[in-house]
Amino acid sequence: MKSLRQLAEISGSEVQGDEQLQISGVATLQNAREGQISFLSNPKYRKQLETTHAAAVILSPKLAADYSGNALINNDPYLAFAKIVNLFHAPEAPQANRHPSALVAADASIGENVAIGANVVIDSGVEIGANSKIGAGTVIGENTRIAAGALVHANVSIYPDIQIGKNVIIHSGAVIGSDGFGFALQADKSWYKIHQVGSVIIGDDVEIGANTSIDRGALEATLIGNGVKLDNQIQIAHNVHIDDHTIIAGAVGIAGSTTIGKRCQIGGAVGIAGHLAIADDVIITGKSMVISSIKEAGVYSSGIAAEENRKWRRNAARFRHLDEMAKQLKELQNIAKQNRNNQNLASD
Amino acid sequence: MKSLRQLAEISGSEVQGDEQLQISGVATLQNAREGQISFLSNPKYRKQLETTHAAAVILSPKLAADYSGNALINNDPYLAFAKIVNLFHAPEAPQANRHPSALVAADASIGENVAIGANVVIDSGVEIGANSKIGAGTVIGENTRIAAGALVHANVSIYPDIQIGKNVIIHSGAVIGSDGFGFALQADKSWYKIHQVGSVIIGDDVEIGANTSIDRGALEATLIGNGVKLDNQIQIAHNVHIDDHTIIAGAVGIAGSTTIGKRCQIGGAVGIAGHLAIADDVIITGKSMVISSIKEAGVYSSGIAAEENRKWRRNAARFRHLDEMAKQLKELQNIAKQNRNNQNLASD
Amino acid sequence: MKSLRQLAEISGSEVQGDEQLQISGVATLQNAREGQISFLSNPKYRKQLETTHAAAVILSPKLAADYSGNALINNDPYLAFAKIVNLFHAPEAPQANRHPSALVAADASIGENVAIGANVVIDSGVEIGANSKIGAGTVIGENTRIAAGALVHANVSIYPDIQIGKNVIIHSGAVIGSDGFGFALQADKSWYKIHQVGSVIIGDDVEIGANTSIDRGALEATLIGNGVKLDNQIQIAHNVHIDDHTIIAGAVGIAGSTTIGKRCQIGGAVGIAGHLAIADDVIITGKSMVISSIKEAGVYSSGIAAEENRKWRRNAARFRHLDEMAKQLKELQNIAKQNRNNQNLASD
Repeated sequence: MKSLRQLAEISGSEVQGDEQLQISGVATLQNAREGQISFLSNPKYRKQLETTHAAAVILSPKLAADYSGNALINNDPYLAFAKIVNLFHAPEAPQANRHPSALVAADASIGENVAIGANVVIDSGVEIGANSKIGAGTVIGENTRIAAGALVHANVSIYPDIQIGKNVIIHSGAVIGSDGFGFALQADKSWYKIHQVGSVIIGDDVEIGANTSIDRGALEATLIGNGVKLDNQIQIAHNVHIDDHTIIAGAVGIAGSTTIGKRCQIGGAVGIAGHLAIADDVIITGKSMVISSIKEAGVYSSGIAAEENRKWRRNAARFRHLDEMAKQLKELQNIAKQNRNNQNLASD
Repeated sequence: MKSLRQLAEISGSEVQGDEQLQISGVATLQNAREGQISFLSNPKYRKQLETTHAAAVILSPKLAADYSGNALINNDPYLAFAKIVNLFHAPEAPQANRHPSALVAADASIGENVAIGANVVIDSGVEIGANSKIGAGTVIGENTRIAAGALVHANVSIYPDIQIGKNVIIHSGAVIGSDGFGFALQADKSWYKIHQVGSVIIGDDVEIGANTSIDRGALEATLIGNGVKLDNQIQIAHNVHIDDHTIIAGAVGIAGSTTIGKRCQIGGAVGIAGHLAIADDVIITGKSMVISSIKEAGVYSSGIAAEENRKWRRNAARFRHLDEMAKQLKELQNIAKQNRNNQNLASD
Repeated sequence: MKSLRQLAEISGSEVQGDEQLQISGVATLQNAREGQISFLSNPKYRKQLETTHAAAVILSPKLAADYSGNALINNDPYLAFAKIVNLFHAPEAPQANRHPSALVAADASIGENVAIGANVVIDSGVEIGANSKIGAGTVIGENTRIAAGALVHANVSIYPDIQIGKNVIIHSGAVIGSDGFGFALQADKSWYKIHQVGSVIIGDDVEIGANTSIDRGALEATLIGNGVKLDNQIQIAHNVHIDDHTIIAGAVGIAGSTTIGKRCQIGGAVGIAGHLAIADDVIITGKSMVISSIKEAGVYSSGIAAEENRKWRRNAARFRHLDEMAKQLKELQNIAKQNRNNQNLASD
């Protein structure tokens, strides 16, 4: 139980209403029960404010003005809510514990208060920083170094010689350090594998989603900056650099040697070709196809929204004649111009 | 060995030809050998009927009329065939068995006839229903409950506090219950993680493909209805609801808080944005991009089919001037209209 | 240390400059230090030739003519470099070794010089060829056969009854042999599972990327030819055939029963529909949507490149009226033609 006043302090909000109101937990507007606090950030859900049973709601000053119930007022209700969620649901600090089935190489260096789950495999020369938790079935290859505060979930695969910063979260099924996709074509049309001898270097405060893969560099390192957040099912190819605080949604693919700037936001299922440079503060909307570098901050998009199949068939069929259409249009413009000239001539 | 008559009964078909014909197994039209039964469902393969060595073929009444060989006649040859495949290849019922290397928490509750593979990790408070099979290397987190009849393949990762219904099949590499992708932007442009305290609730008769990931809800549960079938490499974000009997092909991504109705069919590599509602009985063709809600049943599509690169370059280049083209077209229409009016005037 | 002469011999190159120059390793042009050799293949990076500290550079004859430093001259600098990388970074041959925690069925057949990692599970009837390495946590199902020279990384899942050729590399998180996605619709709109009784047959010299999945065939085998290279996060559905030396980049999805010819190159995030046939020597550029068969070798593409969001909105909105635009254009052409005819008539 926390008072509304306490929650205001934690989240940097103003109280509207009863400061001593006791709050037992967090919930959505729609499902909040007595004693719970909720928030409204997406105006799409504004109607729910009228019917919510939440004891208090976190609101922007503007929305709070129209709301007569108990509220926390904050310019960023979502961030304020996040802080309150984390107060009620703080993850437990790991306790020093090594499951008897864990296989930790004799020369691995394990920090203080590290919890190592069942069937974890930690190879020779590995370092794990203090206050980390390694989930069951995770395999960490030789000489990989993971700094303090890591939360690595079950069944993660980390190849040898990888460097991972502080307070990193890695979800199940993620693979870090697999070979980059490098082959040279031989005269007989078979492919000659180029051994991938680079590494992956991951900064602090990075989160890596379930089943995401990050390939090691061909010669140098694939780089993931500080504070980068990667969702599930992402493919990051060799030699990619992703700079600090960039956030990437699920199912994105980034081809080799592309660099992405700071604070970018990349929507789900975007595909980015190789050897490109994306500037800082670029936002790319979902499912876009990026095949050239982006030099300026801004919002970029491609893709056509789904429509009724019958209409789509007709429009898509026309697309294949678009160049022809453009030429025909040009021709008609020329005729119109000619006619205008003739008329001008005639009226002279 | 089964007689054609027996197969007719099992599949609800009529026999055409020799009821006592002995059938030894199932095969495709193209590769069937003596004694095997096949089927024809896709008219694309109709020619194979002329050359097949199948002892009998399952056909629609219409196709059977033109076929002189032994046949089972059924309005739905594919479904009839499926039933016969399953007759010849019924999966074995699991036998009570716990591999000595399996690590099952003392307070986990394991039903009757449950087979637990090598190196399985079952945490405290987990419940596994009767007649289930848990594949080697699978990890099941605390307090997760899996109902009877589950078939969980090797190396699956199930997080804590997940609920899974009866007769569910989960393929290798699937991840269920990873954190939803929720971050609030802070003033310094870094991302503040919102702990994901919801769950995943999965209905009965669900199948989940290899390397598919389903995130847990932010506050409540991500919901997968009864009879939902999910292919491989699918990403399902937090708070998504997928209603009963919807089927989703591989490599689809569904962003957070989107709801999908009953009996939908979603093609491969479709991307669906967040916070949308898709009605019941919606079909979305492969690789479509869905960025607004779909309110009525029907077939929806987007995407342009690949064409020869040279043509594509020209058409795609024109697309970037489509708005301009539309304006020029409008202008020409206005001129044409003007001319017509002038002519009318002149002829008055 | 190798002399430039030795490297020339290994890579089939000519020496330009000091044959006795000692080379200690490989690096990129940008980061090469004293004693290292680099290469220039992509003309995009040509400028780096002026500033590199590489002791020697592998160059095409044309570029070498303008370069005064030590060089290896080769018509294919990338392939020559690959061979030299592999000389300096040859993977160690596996040594016979079985981690005490590995669980190998008594009747499994393990060749000579096979290294089996911690917590590996090898089921009954499995065969592993000589000189193979099986990474920690990998699970290999009953009766699967893997030929000599395999390198299977950690946490791979291989289902029962799969056949894998010689010198195959499989990366972490890959899943081979999961059920194809086969369901028949029943009258009550629920889906009836068709047991997938086929296999997967993988040729020699195949590489399979991290978190890639290959489903087993419905009745026969999903086939992956010799020398095929598959990147990460690829989905290959049941009954797909991929012929020899085809290379497929990350995040591609290939739907059921499609066949792909020899020596094809498929870019990242391409989606290929089911039941299609792609000819030999087809190149498909990244993120294309393939929904009909491709009968001739060549380069094929689709997709629209991302542009500034404001422009995209306008162009994409017009796309939905493209059919209408085409009709209006046709109408204007008819008017123009009519006018021309009238003028001709008038001038007769």
